[in-house]
Amino acid sequence: MAARDLFHTLVRSALETHGWTVTHDPYVLTVGGVDFAIDLGAEHLMAAKRDGVQIAVEIKSFLGPSLITDFHAALGQFLNYQLALEQTDPTRQLYLAVPLDAYLTFFQLPFAQTARERYAVRLLIYDPGQPEALTWTPHPPIE
Amino acid sequence: MAARDLFHTLVRSALETHGWTVTHDPYVLTVGGVDFAIDLGAEHLMAAKRDGVQIAVEIKSFLGPSLITDFHAALGQFLNYQLALEQTDPTRQLYLAVPLDAYLTFFQLPFAQTARERYAVRLLIYDPGQPEALTWTPHPPIE
Repeated sequence: MAARDLFHTLVRSALETHGWTVTHDPYVLTVGGVDFAIDLGAEHLMAAKRDGVQIAVEIKSFLGPSLITDFHAALGQFLNYQLALEQTDPTRQLYLAVPLDAYLTFFQLPFAQTARERYAVRLLIYDPGQPEALTWTPHPPIE
Repeated sequence: MAARDLFHTLVRSALETHGWTVTHDPYVLTVGGVDFAIDLGAEHLMAAKRDGVQIAVEIKSFLGPSLITDFHAALGQFLNYQLALEQTDPTRQLYLAVPLDAYLTFFQLPFAQTARERYAVRLLIYDPGQPEALTWTPHPPIE
């Protein structure tokens, strides 16, 4: 299986392990004449909230030759998907899933931190070495 | 010559034809631990302004199989470069150079217009069929 598909399967399974129901794979939407396919849509049911919490997750591998080039594409996807969701499904929270090694290297650089803050990028960190571990930052969609 | 290089040469020549001096090819900068290379830096001298007007131009071909995928990458590049320039060269105006056919198709879609407005994307439209024609939108860097 290609690494890209492997990471997709890994993130999907990890979400399920943590009580999420994957409702869309992919989550497709059409907004303003453009078709989008976000990797996953998922829902977490909670006793306190009738409709549960809904997320969309775009899974990035950061396996390209240049992390900044991968980040350009990921940032553009995140912001375009967010704009599309605002118009069709505004309570669904969007996360960019990134592998732990990219998080511990590229995402610690001052520029990457500034960009994440400026553009309010939400990350879901997965670890190919510990397939069940998931870290949400700046905060998880459910407390 | 690959189309990508052809468009680079075309935009560079068109800028020169319109009185711009290309000062950087590429315009490199390092901000917060990340190295960036924007395709061109250029300056237009004006009698009224001692230091002239300075721009940076990232040239996109939009020749990939998916215009929205090309747009994700272009938007991310534009916003990251803008953030980097803010910290090192804040008066330099950044433009994304796009070919006329992509402007007349993809960029007319309601979603693309919304995204351009939301993220204040400045475009420089070039026309491979009329190599000297340049259109700046929403407004040119000089009047």
